[in-house]
Amino acid sequence: MGDLACIRSLDLFSDLTDAQFAQVISCIENRSYSKEEFLFHEGDRASRIFVLKSGRIKLFKNSWDGKELILAFLTPDSIFGEDAVFSGETYSASAMAVEDSCALVFTRSNIERILLENPGIAVKVIENLSRRLYKSTNQVSDIAFRDARGRLASALLRLSSEYGKPSREGTVIDLNLTHQDIANIVSLSRTTVTNLLLDLRDNELITIKNHRIILKDQARLADWVR
Amino acid sequence: MGDLACIRSLDLFSDLTDAQFAQVISCIENRSYSKEEFLFHEGDRASRIFVLKSGRIKLFKNSWDGKELILAFLTPDSIFGEDAVFSGETYSASAMAVEDSCALVFTRSNIERILLENPGIAVKVIENLSRRLYKSTNQVSDIAFRDARGRLASALLRLSSEYGKPSREGTVIDLNLTHQDIANIVSLSRTTVTNLLLDLRDNELITIKNHRIILKDQARLADWVR
Repeated sequence: MGDLACIRSLDLFSDLTDAQFAQVISCIENRSYSKEEFLFHEGDRASRIFVLKSGRIKLFKNSWDGKELILAFLTPDSIFGEDAVFSGETYSASAMAVEDSCALVFTRSNIERILLENPGIAVKVIENLSRRLYKSTNQVSDIAFRDARGRLASALLRLSSEYGKPSREGTVIDLNLTHQDIANIVSLSRTTVTNLLLDLRDNELITIKNHRIILKDQARLADWVR
Repeated sequence: MGDLACIRSLDLFSDLTDAQFAQVISCIENRSYSKEEFLFHEGDRASRIFVLKSGRIKLFKNSWDGKELILAFLTPDSIFGEDAVFSGETYSASAMAVEDSCALVFTRSNIERILLENPGIAVKVIENLSRRLYKSTNQVSDIAFRDARGRLASALLRLSSEYGKPSREGTVIDLNLTHQDIANIVSLSRTTVTNLLLDLRDNELITIKNHRIILKDQARLADWVR
C-alpha cells in the first residue's frame, strides 16, 4: 500500500470525499520517529497535533524525582496532542516512540480549518477525546480508591479491552510490557507488581509468554478489582 | 434577560446565526434540578449530553466502600456527559446539583446532527473536552506523584486558576468548599486536609473567610507543590 493510500485508510479520513481528502492532505506534514525518540516533552509549548500512522507511542508524565506515570500506549489511528493545543497550554505529558513510528503532524491553525470544513473529522476527534477522558477518569479513581491488587487487576482489564487479542489460552494483551511499565501505569513499585503478577499466575488468572500477558479468566480477575 | 436570550448568550452558541440558533434550540430540552438532585449516576447508560445554564454541578466518583473522588465543579457554560456518550459507554461519574441549577439536555442523535451541521460548536466541544482531559491528567499525576502537602497545594492552585477572583486580600477561590470536599478532590483524609490548611494559614499563604479560601501568595504556594 502506497503512503497516500495508507493515510487515506486511517479512520479519521474514512468519510471524506477524494476532493476533501486531497485538501486535508495538502497541509499535513508526514514525520518518522526512531524508537525512543521524543515527539514532544511535557511542558513544551503545544503547537502540533499528531495522528499516529504506524508504530507505537508512549504518553507519560515524570515526577520531579524521576518517577514515571504512563497515561497511554497509543496505537495507529490515535490522535494526540490536541488536548494541549485546544486548551491553549503546554503539553501535559511527554510522547516517546517505543517502536519506530510514523505520524501525521498538523499545526493548530491547520487543524482548526480542517475541523471547520470537515465536521465529520471533528466528531471523530470528539470521540477520541471522549475515550481518553473516560480512561483518564478511571485511572485517577483506580489510583485514588483501590489497593495494589485492585489497581493491578483493573489496569490489566483496561489494557485487555484496549489491546486484547483472543488466543487459545485466553486474551493476550498485545503490548511488550516490562514489570516496570506496569508499575508505571498503576503507580506502584516494580517489586509489588512482580509479586502480584506471580500471585495472579499461581492462581491461574494469567500466564506470561514472550513478554505478553495472557488473561485466562477475566471474570475472576474482575473479582480482584474491589 | 428572557430564557431564550440567556441560552443564546452561552459561549457554545455565540457564533451561530439566528437561523442556526433557532434550529439548534428546537431540539433541546430545558431542565431544572434542585440542590442535591442527581442529573445522572455513575454506571447509568449514557444517552444525554448537558450544557449547564445556571447553578453548579459536582462531578464525582464513589468507591465501593463509600469514598468520594471529586473530578470537577462545573460552572455555567460547561458541557458534560459527552465523554460517556461519545465513547459509547455508561457515565463514568455521577453528576449532582450542589445549587439549584438549570441545564440544556441533548440526546446523542440530536447532538451528532448539531455538530455535523455546526462545526463551530464541534470545535467548542473539542476545546471543552481538551481542558477536562488536561485537568484530569494533572489530577492523576498529582495523586500518583505528590505527597499530601504537594497534592493540596497543586489542587488549590488549579482551583484558583479555574474559579479564582481577585480581591484585596488575594485570589478568592469562589466555591463554597468544606474540608471534606477538598479531601475528596485530593484523595486525602479530612483530618489531614484540616491540618494542612491550618499550616498554610499559619504560614500566611492562605486565609479562609465565609467558607471561601483566599490565596495570599501563589508563588510561595507553588513552592509547596514539589
